[in-house]
Amino acid sequence: MPITPENTWEAVSTIRAQAPLIHNITNYVVMNSTANALLALGASPVMAHAREEVEEMVSAASALVINIGTLSPPWVESMTSAARKAAERRIPIVLDPVGAGATSYRTRTVRKLLDAVAPTIIRGNASEILALAAAEKGRTKGVDATEHSSRAVEAARRMSERYGSTICISGETDFIVSRQVLLGIKNGHPLMARVTGLGCTASALCGAFAAVNPSFALAAAQAMAIMGVAGEMAAEISPGPGSLQLHFLDILYQLTEEDLVRRMRTSPGAG
Amino acid sequence: MPITPENTWEAVSTIRAQAPLIHNITNYVVMNSTANALLALGASPVMAHAREEVEEMVSAASALVINIGTLSPPWVESMTSAARKAAERRIPIVLDPVGAGATSYRTRTVRKLLDAVAPTIIRGNASEILALAAAEKGRTKGVDATEHSSRAVEAARRMSERYGSTICISGETDFIVSRQVLLGIKNGHPLMARVTGLGCTASALCGAFAAVNPSFALAAAQAMAIMGVAGEMAAEISPGPGSLQLHFLDILYQLTEEDLVRRMRTSPGAG
Amino acid sequence: MPITPENTWEAVSTIRAQAPLIHNITNYVVMNSTANALLALGASPVMAHAREEVEEMVSAASALVINIGTLSPPWVESMTSAARKAAERRIPIVLDPVGAGATSYRTRTVRKLLDAVAPTIIRGNASEILALAAAEKGRTKGVDATEHSSRAVEAARRMSERYGSTICISGETDFIVSRQVLLGIKNGHPLMARVTGLGCTASALCGAFAAVNPSFALAAAQAMAIMGVAGEMAAEISPGPGSLQLHFLDILYQLTEEDLVRRMRTSPGAG
Repeated sequence: MPITPENTWEAVSTIRAQAPLIHNITNYVVMNSTANALLALGASPVMAHAREEVEEMVSAASALVINIGTLSPPWVESMTSAARKAAERRIPIVLDPVGAGATSYRTRTVRKLLDAVAPTIIRGNASEILALAAAEKGRTKGVDATEHSSRAVEAARRMSERYGSTICISGETDFIVSRQVLLGIKNGHPLMARVTGLGCTASALCGAFAAVNPSFALAAAQAMAIMGVAGEMAAEISPGPGSLQLHFLDILYQLTEEDLVRRMRTSPGAG
Repeated sequence: MPITPENTWEAVSTIRAQAPLIHNITNYVVMNSTANALLALGASPVMAHAREEVEEMVSAASALVINIGTLSPPWVESMTSAARKAAERRIPIVLDPVGAGATSYRTRTVRKLLDAVAPTIIRGNASEILALAAAEKGRTKGVDATEHSSRAVEAARRMSERYGSTICISGETDFIVSRQVLLGIKNGHPLMARVTGLGCTASALCGAFAAVNPSFALAAAQAMAIMGVAGEMAAEISPGPGSLQLHFLDILYQLTEEDLVRRMRTSPGAG
Repeated sequence: MPITPENTWEAVSTIRAQAPLIHNITNYVVMNSTANALLALGASPVMAHAREEVEEMVSAASALVINIGTLSPPWVESMTSAARKAAERRIPIVLDPVGAGATSYRTRTVRKLLDAVAPTIIRGNASEILALAAAEKGRTKGVDATEHSSRAVEAARRMSERYGSTICISGETDFIVSRQVLLGIKNGHPLMARVTGLGCTASALCGAFAAVNPSFALAAAQAMAIMGVAGEMAAEISPGPGSLQLHFLDILYQLTEEDLVRRMRTSPGAG
């Protein structure tokens, strides 16, 4: 099923109508901004990380989003328990391997998570995906994307085959890679890279779309299209990154089908 | 003493003049936004959670705000120590039972805190208050309010009798319940629910008002009135939740007595 | 070398061109806002605190910023390890002693950090610097500045002699104190005190400037000048602290040499 403005709008409408509960175990930097993005979209966020409650919380959720941005051992334990429970309940699991490759601890942790439970969707930048796939031994520089997203497509294909996951590589063109599908999304704006955590927000939105759409590659593509469209609409009226953050939330909240029809630029291929 | 725009304004002026130090042990999601709201109001926030320092920090504070939004065992220990110290010093303690009922860990923790120290004010949504009072065995869905606030008034009355606390149930109408008092506040705007943590902000403001007003039911009512007035003024000029956050802080900072006189809608009863 | 708009602009341009990676071990309240300020300036922030990865992360960084705002023992351990590694690699270390003096745990921790590694730059308000220098036994009230920055200059001079650090005392006039240098920066605006964490942001910017400028006293002065200029430009168009936050990031992103030439007010002396 190809991504279209119409099916993307339908998914947005379903999220707004159902307000699916998205359980996030995420990093300290973006907890506030991702919760706000999920609320602006129409989903219902909850953040909980204690081993004492993650399994019960995930049992009430429609999707689990795991983000390793500010890791520590107790959090890794909770992520693993929550992911196992989510897999048992067959709800979608989104993994954001923030900074994979930047330290061996992050790379090791992601591999451990991958060995425990195959995520439904893995969303990262090209450096992170390359690091994960060990397609390249290079290190990421912090948590920024330093590789072109197209270079990571081959690595993503291999990961997708191994784990059965949809891999979403964000960049100037976002690539959605699964065994059967390769989609490119060309929305977005360079100013978005000057706001911390918009990649993490993209992962959270993948969770919301996957919660209402059993076709996970399509869900990931729809989430990235919404990010890109809202981001570029926000950037066009923003003199800087402070304004962009504000307008991004306003636009996510106000988004119409017409915005999607007018702006979505997707391609079924290497983009 | 009934709530009036005049006594509410007097409390705001006292907060601005005295800048009471409000010690918050709160969740990761809202630390930044509640600190900013306290600063915009004129109070002086501090966040500290280490067992090594909470007692000393609370000794310098004029109120303690405990919020269980992103719990874990070491935090619960610190919350308990800080609450005991606050009780010993007879400074107000505000408890925000975020997500009580959503997991047994949260419900259990709140009960443990309640057994250790009776809070001055408990502020939650109707689901949380109902969960706490065990008036209903139903689960809250995440941390959103799924129950009408009026349904929780009876439960709040029982909790107030048991703990001697003022119970503040936020919702379309906010109810302030204590053994002697029932107040309804009808300010606010639906868009506020699309900004994460405005409930937590309300609890923090309860701390600031209780710090300067020994009549705690009145203090809670004043805090909710300020939240509602600033929130509805912000919502009226905001196309979405991003703008609302910004305007909410600006308006909290600029609020005048006239705004209160013109907007406050309170009622001494079931609202 | 005196601070000038020209050499400050040159430093800004270098940061924009090189995007130095700034490793922050900082408090929960400001992680998002300091990451955004570093991004708006043109630097590349990373937040990481796990003992398992801080040494490796600091090995990729161009500066380390340590901020004790929401301390706990595992974080102190990581701060110490990271600082040792940074010293070994001879990259600049900025220490922000948030709330030093407010609790003995904070004061003790800062002294422990100082004993382990001499920071390149220590940036705090007058109360914090006085508490550190033990020049005064008085307690700080929360984390606000309650002392005039000029009173702390003598204490800063002694600390600078003892640790070889540049001491930056922020206040209405910011003082940059080292063994050879005393500079005053008179930019800024009172509304900035109503936004949480702008002091922490100043420390993070000190890290970015020190990463590209081996003259650390000059780097600290340039960082404070940029904070003050962007802050006052933002405040002038902001009706309250919500707007200030947004405009501050926009202006940091858009800042021009002309802004610096027109606004910077520095003095080589007691200001």
